[in-house]
Amino acid sequence: MTHRLEPLLNPSSIAIIGASTDPGRIGGMPIELLTRYGYAGKIYPVNPKYSSAFGLECWPDIESVPQPVDLAVLAIGAQDVLPMLRRCRSRGAKSAIVYAAGFAEQNEAGMALQREIEEFAALSGMVVAGPNCMGLANLNTQAHTAFASVFKTSPMQQEPGRVSLLTQSGNVCSALYGLLRKLDLPVSQFINTGNEACVDFAEYLQYLAEDPHTEIVLGYMEQLRDGPGFMRACRSLQQQDKVLVALKAGATDKGAQAVRSHTSALAGDRRVYRAAFEQLNVIEARDFAQMAWLARLAQLRHRGGGRRVAVITMSGALGAILADRFIEAGLELPDLPEAVQAVLRAGIPDYGMVGNPVDVTGNVVNDPGFVRTVLESLASTPAVDAVVIYAPGYMLDRMADAIAEVAQRHPRLIAAIDTGQAKCRDALRAAEVAVFEDLGVAVSALGPYLTWCERRKQVRAWAVRVPPAGAAALPPLPAHELDARRYLAGFGLQCPQEAGAADVDEACAIAGRLGYPVVLKLLSAHVAHKTELGAVALNLADEAALRAAAQRMLQSVRAARPDIAVAGLLVQKMERRGMELIVGARRDPVFGPMLTVGMGGVLTEIYQDTSHGLLPLDRAAAARMLRGLRIFPLLEGFRGMPAYDVDAACEAMVAIGDALVAAPAQVAEIEVNPLWVRPQGQGAVALDALLLAADACPESGQASHRAAMA
Amino acid sequence: MTHRLEPLLNPSSIAIIGASTDPGRIGGMPIELLTRYGYAGKIYPVNPKYSSAFGLECWPDIESVPQPVDLAVLAIGAQDVLPMLRRCRSRGAKSAIVYAAGFAEQNEAGMALQREIEEFAALSGMVVAGPNCMGLANLNTQAHTAFASVFKTSPMQQEPGRVSLLTQSGNVCSALYGLLRKLDLPVSQFINTGNEACVDFAEYLQYLAEDPHTEIVLGYMEQLRDGPGFMRACRSLQQQDKVLVALKAGATDKGAQAVRSHTSALAGDRRVYRAAFEQLNVIEARDFAQMAWLARLAQLRHRGGGRRVAVITMSGALGAILADRFIEAGLELPDLPEAVQAVLRAGIPDYGMVGNPVDVTGNVVNDPGFVRTVLESLASTPAVDAVVIYAPGYMLDRMADAIAEVAQRHPRLIAAIDTGQAKCRDALRAAEVAVFEDLGVAVSALGPYLTWCERRKQVRAWAVRVPPAGAAALPPLPAHELDARRYLAGFGLQCPQEAGAADVDEACAIAGRLGYPVVLKLLSAHVAHKTELGAVALNLADEAALRAAAQRMLQSVRAARPDIAVAGLLVQKMERRGMELIVGARRDPVFGPMLTVGMGGVLTEIYQDTSHGLLPLDRAAAARMLRGLRIFPLLEGFRGMPAYDVDAACEAMVAIGDALVAAPAQVAEIEVNPLWVRPQGQGAVALDALLLAADACPESGQASHRAAMA
Repeated sequence: MTHRLEPLLNPSSIAIIGASTDPGRIGGMPIELLTRYGYAGKIYPVNPKYSSAFGLECWPDIESVPQPVDLAVLAIGAQDVLPMLRRCRSRGAKSAIVYAAGFAEQNEAGMALQREIEEFAALSGMVVAGPNCMGLANLNTQAHTAFASVFKTSPMQQEPGRVSLLTQSGNVCSALYGLLRKLDLPVSQFINTGNEACVDFAEYLQYLAEDPHTEIVLGYMEQLRDGPGFMRACRSLQQQDKVLVALKAGATDKGAQAVRSHTSALAGDRRVYRAAFEQLNVIEARDFAQMAWLARLAQLRHRGGGRRVAVITMSGALGAILADRFIEAGLELPDLPEAVQAVLRAGIPDYGMVGNPVDVTGNVVNDPGFVRTVLESLASTPAVDAVVIYAPGYMLDRMADAIAEVAQRHPRLIAAIDTGQAKCRDALRAAEVAVFEDLGVAVSALGPYLTWCERRKQVRAWAVRVPPAGAAALPPLPAHELDARRYLAGFGLQCPQEAGAADVDEACAIAGRLGYPVVLKLLSAHVAHKTELGAVALNLADEAALRAAAQRMLQSVRAARPDIAVAGLLVQKMERRGMELIVGARRDPVFGPMLTVGMGGVLTEIYQDTSHGLLPLDRAAAARMLRGLRIFPLLEGFRGMPAYDVDAACEAMVAIGDALVAAPAQVAEIEVNPLWVRPQGQGAVALDALLLAADACPESGQASHRAAMA
Repeated sequence: MTHRLEPLLNPSSIAIIGASTDPGRIGGMPIELLTRYGYAGKIYPVNPKYSSAFGLECWPDIESVPQPVDLAVLAIGAQDVLPMLRRCRSRGAKSAIVYAAGFAEQNEAGMALQREIEEFAALSGMVVAGPNCMGLANLNTQAHTAFASVFKTSPMQQEPGRVSLLTQSGNVCSALYGLLRKLDLPVSQFINTGNEACVDFAEYLQYLAEDPHTEIVLGYMEQLRDGPGFMRACRSLQQQDKVLVALKAGATDKGAQAVRSHTSALAGDRRVYRAAFEQLNVIEARDFAQMAWLARLAQLRHRGGGRRVAVITMSGALGAILADRFIEAGLELPDLPEAVQAVLRAGIPDYGMVGNPVDVTGNVVNDPGFVRTVLESLASTPAVDAVVIYAPGYMLDRMADAIAEVAQRHPRLIAAIDTGQAKCRDALRAAEVAVFEDLGVAVSALGPYLTWCERRKQVRAWAVRVPPAGAAALPPLPAHELDARRYLAGFGLQCPQEAGAADVDEACAIAGRLGYPVVLKLLSAHVAHKTELGAVALNLADEAALRAAAQRMLQSVRAARPDIAVAGLLVQKMERRGMELIVGARRDPVFGPMLTVGMGGVLTEIYQDTSHGLLPLDRAAAARMLRGLRIFPLLEGFRGMPAYDVDAACEAMVAIGDALVAAPAQVAEIEVNPLWVRPQGQGAVALDALLLAADACPESGQASHRAAMA
């Protein structure tokens, strides 16, 4: 089936309403570009003022255009847009682009106007891009509908492109286009989405996922209006081994503020986006040059590798600097296998280095045979995934033939950095070697790219689980912790040895059965933070201590909060050794159910040491989340300390996530704090658990807890 | 007085021993460069094989050269170097450069050879650069003695330069030179130091500090052989308002390994270097393009500012992205004062932004009068330190006149980012506007530069204190904690309420005097880690508890360690509320006495949350160290929690630092763990203290502690 955006993104006929004969005006520039670059479809300038424009017949109105067009470009003011859309539609136009500003980005009246367009589009089935956008360009068909001067200042491509641009800003689209052309990369689609009244980022992305002329997408976003659609599109891209490189604005408070005042978009939580990108196989980018270089790397055919890089230089200093920067960027420089070192040692002088970085020394570049041997051996050892040669100017020139030859023989990413003026750059590029002119740019592109190459293997293995239905019915909310835990236990969460008691005598009987020491808690659906109310007593050694604690507890609660309903007492067996985690599952406004895990407490907040993941999780994804915590070494057994039950912690995370996915929408959030992770092999139990309703007003302590986990 | 390096770095006559007529050989290239670029001094090629070279008379040997030369360049093999140095010296040569490799970087024999050169230089007073170096160049006099092909491939400067290069690698020197020339920045000195047998990095740096032709130094280092000399040179630079931008290799283990196998240099601790750079007014850099841009920024005259940036764009998206990147790079985008916002609001449409980033919108660039008003108001408000304009291509062109005009009127750093192809770049540069072509490079240069502008005000205020002599004599080492604390108290360190007791009865009497609860510890110079031995009992509530604890303690210590001498018992009043820090002072092999502070414990190790500072410290520097800790908010009172006595903690840090500076060399390290910081106004006391002798073999627990603080 043809995608509904086809008439918009691959039109065979275009009408420009509000056409101008001035190539500097928005009604003129697209016509000039269409004619200059040889668009093969039909072009219909429409304006009663002119009889011709750029050598084409100009039509007085859309009604006189002799055929229904695929695409009508509206270069007219905001107030005139809706009537004109109706007229175009009644003349059979399948899609339209609205340049005009003055809609939702402006004020209330503009918002109302935009809603009318949305309604018209929904009812009529017309595909409307914008409003408030710069237009589009299909560079493979030269279907230009954008007023972007970058098409005049950058040399036009001669070959078909496989890289598409999809941005929520026209200026960003132009900036990226200019940089891609500087790298001589041809482009497929140039899309800026504007206000996304009818077609949003996710729908365009889905089109590009299905577009045979797109292999790589460079995306810029401020907000995602359709999170689930975005996730589906990412999975489509992934299934076809296409790549999305995305820059998300609003990483800082100030950036988010700028996004908000710019488009009234909510930037969303940066860490949530980052986690979602990782799970959705997206490469996250930080600036434009980096994105253009990531596109170039992704166009090379070597995506099977990972983060292990061999560095070759002719200078120990350059090797050391590159090692520092690569490792800081998350890459690895593994020691080379003894056999490879032996090959290198045969020709590298004593003052060189056969480790990694390899310093072949300046003399060796004069011996192309040995250079070929070195490259050959690094390009074929299974100990590395990529080879980077840092050789300035003429030194690179001397090695160029050997590099090109080896690059063509081995399916491995080979990159060169030339901070000099090497003459061989084009020849190396022709051999599919990535040639960088700047060390910083090389690191900023290779770091995320090779990390992604490694991660995508895991992402590929990550099948979306269908979480089980729970075994217990959802208790009425708010629920006390025993009810909450019973519900969660139905998804496989481990609970402590515990029982609820109606009175102190029953509590003593339970404690006798469980064995001392025990923990006593007040059981109430209305006290989320028991400690502050004196409603928790730890480590009670015997019955006397239990009775005394119970008496104190009931007195202090009655004094402080005479209003609350008390469901009874809860007796838990006191846990001994273990490590506390906090696990929270909540519904993200963009990505839906998400899980967060951290160590809990004030230090987690200060160090912002939390991991996030889209739900449902499988155990491997839960393990990756835990490994993403900086405190993970403590769980594994740090410096001879005992190891804790990481497997059980992962199972608990999966269960908590499943519970939220399965729960009705009224459950906004599930929090287990602490999840008590016992020593290895002994499990992980939810010592406390909360089910929060969507409309629950959290206590202040609660709010600060959640801030810690945000 | 003339600096002793003057004949080397500013020679008026040069002999090239081992001259060649081939410009591609190391004995030929310098002569070619000297003649090509018009060096005005005397040039004496020396080689019996030729009668002339590059149009100059060639002399058979140094003895026949008709005058004593300032500088002899030795383009001969390692084995011939020493005899030739003797001959040159006896003919009156004041200095020499040794190109040859095969010295300390190679093997034992080379090391011995290098030592001979060192001895000869020391005895004769001859200044010898290298060996194993690429040579030098004074670009202001065109005194070329380097075989660096970059002088042929980069266009030669036409004006005098003020930027000098000082590197421990010839390749790095060339790479930096090429980048500076790309930015059209002229260079003063091109120095690569090689093996530094006789002249080291610090001595060159001192020369540059005194050199009237140097204002900015770009330095690359792998190790510093003379830490105190480096520190002196940095202070000289600072006194003359000169700038050192430094890249230090070995930031990662792999990078440090590469440095070591490259030059057998120890890379040193990265965090110590970073701390030293901050205190010594050095701008730390990460790559070459960044260094070149930092040189350009430092050449502009605006160093008085700070980190507060106003960003102007014509695109909300570009503003948001730039805000994100600047803030991540440590800069601030303050809200603009209401008066400034009012000025902006008068001309910026509703869909623009008058906050910071400012989005003037694409329409406004067509109104140069209003653009000037906006710039004027941002260039003069005291609320910001720098103004950055992000306007691609033609948009920047339209604003160029206004920008240039305002830049010339206001002593404030103004930078532009043009990711398009603006034509106005040169005009803006002429007006002292920094014009970046890449967003990432702009952020990587402006971030550290503006941070440095702010920091240098503090550095300027940082007078080197002369620490007081201690009031108490150093106890024999190893010392028990009471003796250690008495010594430290002499420098002003606060101690807990405590006293030593000979036996249990005396301990009880002391506890009675102090008031319960108390802490009981074993007093012994031979147990650094008391807890593990059961030699600490906390929170003893009464005499019975104290007696029982004392008995248990003595028994368990006698059983576990019958060998150790016990000096008695120590009774301390139990501290109540407080926060623990760990403070260590030790002698860094490069920078000498240093202080480290952190929260202590395993989490500090995991989060690597420590601050380092050169000693002696003053209180303000101690406060900056504490503020550099990520856990600092906890000390200040986080989310309504109590604040602790930060001032007292700073005093304690100063006292511990002073104690190490004043102590004889046998004291290798002083550790206070914990420093107990009481609530605000109540002081900070050293609950435990260790004086470690240089030859002490730390217990294993000790070692792991120190790993945490490293």
